[in-house]
Amino acid sequence: MTTVILQLICPDRPGLVSQLSGWIASNNGNIRHADHHTDEGAGLFLSRLEWDLAGFNLSRLSIKEEIVQLANSFGGKAQVNFSDEFPRVAIFVSKQSHCLLDLLWRVNTQEMNMTVPLIVSNHTELQKICEGFDVYYKCVPVNKDDKLISEKIILKTISEYKIDLIVLAKYMQILSNDFLKSSPPIINIHHSFLPAFKGSKPYHRAWERGVKLIGATAHYVTENLDEGPIIDQTIAHVTHRDEVSDLIRKGRDTERIALARALRFHLRRQVMVYQGRTAILA
Amino acid sequence: MTTVILQLICPDRPGLVSQLSGWIASNNGNIRHADHHTDEGAGLFLSRLEWDLAGFNLSRLSIKEEIVQLANSFGGKAQVNFSDEFPRVAIFVSKQSHCLLDLLWRVNTQEMNMTVPLIVSNHTELQKICEGFDVYYKCVPVNKDDKLISEKIILKTISEYKIDLIVLAKYMQILSNDFLKSSPPIINIHHSFLPAFKGSKPYHRAWERGVKLIGATAHYVTENLDEGPIIDQTIAHVTHRDEVSDLIRKGRDTERIALARALRFHLRRQVMVYQGRTAILA
Amino acid sequence: MTTVILQLICPDRPGLVSQLSGWIASNNGNIRHADHHTDEGAGLFLSRLEWDLAGFNLSRLSIKEEIVQLANSFGGKAQVNFSDEFPRVAIFVSKQSHCLLDLLWRVNTQEMNMTVPLIVSNHTELQKICEGFDVYYKCVPVNKDDKLISEKIILKTISEYKIDLIVLAKYMQILSNDFLKSSPPIINIHHSFLPAFKGSKPYHRAWERGVKLIGATAHYVTENLDEGPIIDQTIAHVTHRDEVSDLIRKGRDTERIALARALRFHLRRQVMVYQGRTAILA
Amino acid sequence: MTTVILQLICPDRPGLVSQLSGWIASNNGNIRHADHHTDEGAGLFLSRLEWDLAGFNLSRLSIKEEIVQLANSFGGKAQVNFSDEFPRVAIFVSKQSHCLLDLLWRVNTQEMNMTVPLIVSNHTELQKICEGFDVYYKCVPVNKDDKLISEKIILKTISEYKIDLIVLAKYMQILSNDFLKSSPPIINIHHSFLPAFKGSKPYHRAWERGVKLIGATAHYVTENLDEGPIIDQTIAHVTHRDEVSDLIRKGRDTERIALARALRFHLRRQVMVYQGRTAILA
Repeated sequence: MTTVILQLICPDRPGLVSQLSGWIASNNGNIRHADHHTDEGAGLFLSRLEWDLAGFNLSRLSIKEEIVQLANSFGGKAQVNFSDEFPRVAIFVSKQSHCLLDLLWRVNTQEMNMTVPLIVSNHTELQKICEGFDVYYKCVPVNKDDKLISEKIILKTISEYKIDLIVLAKYMQILSNDFLKSSPPIINIHHSFLPAFKGSKPYHRAWERGVKLIGATAHYVTENLDEGPIIDQTIAHVTHRDEVSDLIRKGRDTERIALARALRFHLRRQVMVYQGRTAILA
Repeated sequence: MTTVILQLICPDRPGLVSQLSGWIASNNGNIRHADHHTDEGAGLFLSRLEWDLAGFNLSRLSIKEEIVQLANSFGGKAQVNFSDEFPRVAIFVSKQSHCLLDLLWRVNTQEMNMTVPLIVSNHTELQKICEGFDVYYKCVPVNKDDKLISEKIILKTISEYKIDLIVLAKYMQILSNDFLKSSPPIINIHHSFLPAFKGSKPYHRAWERGVKLIGATAHYVTENLDEGPIIDQTIAHVTHRDEVSDLIRKGRDTERIALARALRFHLRRQVMVYQGRTAILA
Repeated sequence: MTTVILQLICPDRPGLVSQLSGWIASNNGNIRHADHHTDEGAGLFLSRLEWDLAGFNLSRLSIKEEIVQLANSFGGKAQVNFSDEFPRVAIFVSKQSHCLLDLLWRVNTQEMNMTVPLIVSNHTELQKICEGFDVYYKCVPVNKDDKLISEKIILKTISEYKIDLIVLAKYMQILSNDFLKSSPPIINIHHSFLPAFKGSKPYHRAWERGVKLIGATAHYVTENLDEGPIIDQTIAHVTHRDEVSDLIRKGRDTERIALARALRFHLRRQVMVYQGRTAILA
Repeated sequence: MTTVILQLICPDRPGLVSQLSGWIASNNGNIRHADHHTDEGAGLFLSRLEWDLAGFNLSRLSIKEEIVQLANSFGGKAQVNFSDEFPRVAIFVSKQSHCLLDLLWRVNTQEMNMTVPLIVSNHTELQKICEGFDVYYKCVPVNKDDKLISEKIILKTISEYKIDLIVLAKYMQILSNDFLKSSPPIINIHHSFLPAFKGSKPYHRAWERGVKLIGATAHYVTENLDEGPIIDQTIAHVTHRDEVSDLIRKGRDTERIALARALRFHLRRQVMVYQGRTAILA
């Protein structure tokens, strides 16, 4: 059953829940999920409402138009999505397969409301294992000198494939600010418990530090490396017997869980971003 | 700031969120928390709404009266509580101190919106450590032959002390169905991951079975032993090096966390019970 | 670097560590891992010792012979394995792919010291996805009436493929005692936190009971269903919002982790089984 | 039953386990626990051996003398302790009670092989709650100008009370390097998942960053603030609904678990420190 999903953020004031749910009720909507959060410090009201499209009085287009008006009248912003319109996701990889294969498997088992028409990689290693899946593997090598050219090629491909979301599934390249300005939203998996071990080789540094837990962080990418809004974090226990290679091995499991959970939250339109942080609504 | 907390459960149908929030808005209420859940299988709508009492147009009494009417019109049931009215809780113990001391400490640090005027025990061991706290320690020994008499004494004391909730904090007695019928709601901490190891000596049986995880379960007490609605569950890892005494030791830590979390959910009116299960609303 | 791995279990008495390590030292062995456990209740001594084969004075054959003598002199039993001799593992599946794909991927990333020459299934669904891997997919349908015939076919195939270990990776059939008597050791993944929810449909029953945690248990298969020695257990959190289908989805992640961890312990010869339980040595 | 606990660290070479266990066996020792670890990168051998004192041929004094000789012959260092000789521990606190009360309760339940003759605080708030315990509460206010004087007073008291170990149980003062040079070993609980959020106000900074997990780290204190060897780390989940005060509240639970676990490892002589890291042997 197709549902309408509304995500709204606006300055807090009395009556917002009533107005939103009143509008839905007046159009004969049957609410399936409703979750609201007030961030008192920020003075903001966040709301996620999901209701059946079948039986609702308005068309998809009219819903969007009226919601924009409603959000404007609240001095806020809103997004409307429909559960049967799956985002087109490009997965970026380098040489490691675990997150990529995990995501493709989850698409096959229908855990993930997305289609994956495109995989981008700066290497050729993973091309072969993508063959079984109906997806275009675009290899764009990246060198220091021609990085801008590579990024332009990638942006062009993304545009051609009408990509709505990029997932960096262990893509070992830092994207330029210019790229970020032109690209759709990006979710990255970083192999540490941020903000610990930002940057490169987090497992090596975790081992050096002698930590007893390692982690993974799925976050939106912003201009500041590894400082974007965190969506999900997971951990794994390590002991003195674990070498760096064991941290990497254990990390693979915790990385793919964190990335899959975060991506699922995003695809179900549960994530709301504000002031450098996320709220995950029901 | 005092808040009004409404918990409502009724048959699901369109418009409920709108009617509830509309009623709050029409009385000038400022909603702080709103969480709704639809159990589609059961056809039920569950809602928890919390708003500021200050500025609201209705008195405490009128709120309760109108909510009863509203719930009746929905064919459901509702509870209203005010955040500044702390439940009076009786803690039942036998000889083990860890859950009792933990709860008393949490009251002192103001984690728990409750007062503890009464402790009931079938033993005298813990009387001394309760002396520092302003609480009456009622020792009611329980023997097989005079169990009914003991329970009557306890019920009388509970009534005198106007107890709203009983917490079995490692009370090693099974309460009779007659007791349950006359008593306020009861939360128990069972030292296993229910439904595994119902009944007595769960740690011994867990050790015998060679499990790699042990657990604790906080649940409401019903007539069927260890089968009441589960509020919270926690686990701890064990290894082949752990003897039964180690399971008991590790269990103490996980028990007090599960009990404290569950009790806090209850005291904040986050728990809704239906069809033998609980929903924990935000 | 190839290592020798000794696993010994015998009645406890003073001097055992000294005799074992003395024998290794006298043959010029360089110990890499040594872990011993005394189960005082059972009066048993368990030891796992791993040392370099290179530079050791004895041949593989002589090591095995002398270890048998040593173990006999202790009144116990010992196993010797060499790290470069990978067990040949048959994976049994029905229709669900997650554990199978996870294990095949782990073989490819060299996390698992095993080869997988054979997959057995009572269905054809997973045949196609196994094609990319160099493995024989044997489909043996199982019906109530000809179960014994099916099992005989499977046993014959196992024998032909010289299988050392069977992994039931969501194989939805109960193997007969006759099969168990003739088969190599078997590791099963059960989709509950044993001993809770033994038998069929554990997620449905977990949902019915309203638990707040679900789990998975990897264990050796014995004649008593779901009562074999437990190797590893994992859990996942669930809430009132999770339907049975969500438990199944979350369960897939925790199942494959538990199975992979347990299998890895087994393959590294870290698991010792005694009195219906396991010790996992370093 | 009293046991002897040997902790040895030395350059790795063949025959070490044999020599150590041979020496124990030749003196009629019955080993209860034996755990060895080889750090190949560092070229170091670490060993923890525990055996019964009763029946052993050597006196406590002779054991220590012979072990020193043995360790010298290995070019390493060793420590010998006896399980019935409990360390005298001073607990340092400021105003927060949770770790202090938790540790005192664990002493009472005999989880911790230590005596606590002394509590040091820079405040008076916790004096009253220590009255029920047989312990001297020494209040030493600390001001910027006379910090050195305060530290001298503390060192003198520590010396008078023959303190073997200091536990900083939320002591909100930074000890000078001079203090550290003269003091017994110190274990600190830091309220973050190190190396994230070193220094002050970690919960505030964790909230600012929008993390989904918070943590606690128990570590030995060295001259570099929050950079000493980590003994144990724990985490707790947080959501967008959690304010800083909720992080602090949840943190109290995870802090006391991490500190208690770490301290117990230390008291059981399971912790070995080398190259800025710890190994926790069985």
